Amino acid sequence: MSETKIRPVILSGGAGTRLWPLSRLDRPKPFISLVGGESLLQATARRAQAWGTPIIVTGADQAAAVAAQLPGATTLIEPCARSTAPAIALAALAEAEDTLLLVLPSDHHVTDEAAFRTAIERAAPLAERGWLATFGVTPHRAETGYGYIKAGAELAHGVFQAKRFAEKPDRATAEGFLAEGGWAWNSGIFLFRADAYLSALDRLAPEISNAVKSDRFAEAPALSVDKAVMEKADRVAVVPVDMGWSDIGSWDALHEIGPKDGRENVVTGAALAVDSRGCLVRSDGPTVVALGVEDLIIVATDRAVLVLPRGQSQRVKEALEALELQRDKGGQG
Amino acid sequence: MSETKIRPVILSGGAGTRLWPLSRLDRPKPFISLVGGESLLQATARRAQAWGTPIIVTGADQAAAVAAQLPGATTLIEPCARSTAPAIALAALAEAEDTLLLVLPSDHHVTDEAAFRTAIERAAPLAERGWLATFGVTPHRAETGYGYIKAGAELAHGVFQAKRFAEKPDRATAEGFLAEGGWAWNSGIFLFRADAYLSALDRLAPEISNAVKSDRFAEAPALSVDKAVMEKADRVAVVPVDMGWSDIGSWDALHEIGPKDGRENVVTGAALAVDSRGCLVRSDGPTVVALGVEDLIIVATDRAVLVLPRGQSQRVKEALEALELQRDKGGQG
Repeated sequence: MSETKIRPVILSGGAGTRLWPLSRLDRPKPFISLVGGESLLQATARRAQAWGTPIIVTGADQAAAVAAQLPGATTLIEPCARSTAPAIALAALAEAEDTLLLVLPSDHHVTDEAAFRTAIERAAPLAERGWLATFGVTPHRAETGYGYIKAGAELAHGVFQAKRFAEKPDRATAEGFLAEGGWAWNSGIFLFRADAYLSALDRLAPEISNAVKSDRFAEAPALSVDKAVMEKADRVAVVPVDMGWSDIGSWDALHEIGPKDGRENVVTGAALAVDSRGCLVRSDGPTVVALGVEDLIIVATDRAVLVLPRGQSQRVKEALEALELQRDKGGQG
Repeated sequence: MSETKIRPVILSGGAGTRLWPLSRLDRPKPFISLVGGESLLQATARRAQAWGTPIIVTGADQAAAVAAQLPGATTLIEPCARSTAPAIALAALAEAEDTLLLVLPSDHHVTDEAAFRTAIERAAPLAERGWLATFGVTPHRAETGYGYIKAGAELAHGVFQAKRFAEKPDRATAEGFLAEGGWAWNSGIFLFRADAYLSALDRLAPEISNAVKSDRFAEAPALSVDKAVMEKADRVAVVPVDMGWSDIGSWDALHEIGPKDGRENVVTGAALAVDSRGCLVRSDGPTVVALGVEDLIIVATDRAVLVLPRGQSQRVKEALEALELQRDKGGQG
């Protein structure tokens, strides 16, 4: 590996509300400490340091937050949000042709960093030869919130030809994937040469490469790297990896990966669980005490508190809709 | 009634934590708005105005809060906290001998004010003749948190000789009282002449009257008016009254008396109950959203949030103990 020049490219764009009230438009998920003291962005940058100083591709609105959390980081500013394919093109154009770009979402959690490094080392030789490598997380449940990749023929030890991409499946389909075997979750982590990516983009999504190359970024269609390139390109590899990965896409996911007390509670910040079981109790604001309750998610900030049953954290948007409705009525909130 | 000189005496002392986190040492329950916009003290003073300007007996530490909530109120400052018997003696000494003192706790809730007034009007003629009158709230459940009074012979329409006082009973005893009939909850509201009270005190608790009369208030034993006088005096009357009374001694009590939405939720302040049932959701701080939960008590301030099952609000002290323990360990909270 010491011979290969890898440049980590961390994509820190977009905003989500699935972790409301902790994540908000003005404090997106990458910037929050969800597990341990580091923010997800800081943890991603630290992992990436194994291969060199990362480039952070982000929007102008998040540049200050990036600079605050990663002082001295190399940052590429997207003129506007156009999803991942144009963002990666920006980075590819900034690097030497033969640089291997290690594309990393900024807001994922990895517990087994050794497994992560091994997977990248396995992918690197093929990436050097022009393959576009994806990393496929070994699925532990019939998740319907992720894309799936089916592994085909083995190209090298632990590296397979990507046989098929499947978008977020319904539950029966997801269960079928798990029963069938050979399917992995699409992690959104990629490894490819800068020139391999750009030439694939030229061929498969020329409107993107034209727009980005001619400084008309805003004219690029907003397409994900999966849609624009990976699902259509010829030499696409998948490296299955079991690295304790989570995109922490919900409070339930955070309960799942978080450190538990003896009663399956995950308690973080100014929070206490007393005679309670199976709860996520987290506060970045007032002191929260959960007393005698079970299987609840309780999340507090100085601005807002959310209480809902564990297992229903996909319903966060209903809370936001109700607040919006109340605001429209001129009520409190 | 217009002939009788009644002076309302509102006792605003003590502190409680049963309504934590809303009530605290530095913001005791009388000063909180629990139902509607008024604080309990303000509502008590307003009800008392039917008979004239009340005297507020309070501690030095609460005098500023009283003045802020009741501008221009007549206030008597207790040199130190010595329970209700010495506090009432202070007021009795400040008034003419034949004044009827209407003694009112500052932190109770009454919905049927007409019934309250009727009860006092019934008691007044006997009080003028030297009887010590108590008001007994018609019990609606076998409450173990209150004292009980048994009514004996009828002295006048709706006024009975107090036959027996019973301290907070166990459940079986309380159920026996309800089955037996003729028992009422001791409301802590009293009506008696100033001189009748003082002479009863001279006879039954001379250490109190001696200490108060000689300006050695701190030497008075801290005894309740029940213990010092009512339980032992000869001419004690009880007026049963059904006036929608609550001492709001717990979050469960507040849920019981509070205005419900269509799903039995009591929602107050910056709070929302979405697809939830049977909850008390209250915030004086951050916006609270309860989503898809049942039978919870959720109370928030800028400093603290408490979540516990409805029906278990007597456990609030466990939350405080756990916080204390955490503080002692040097943790957050």
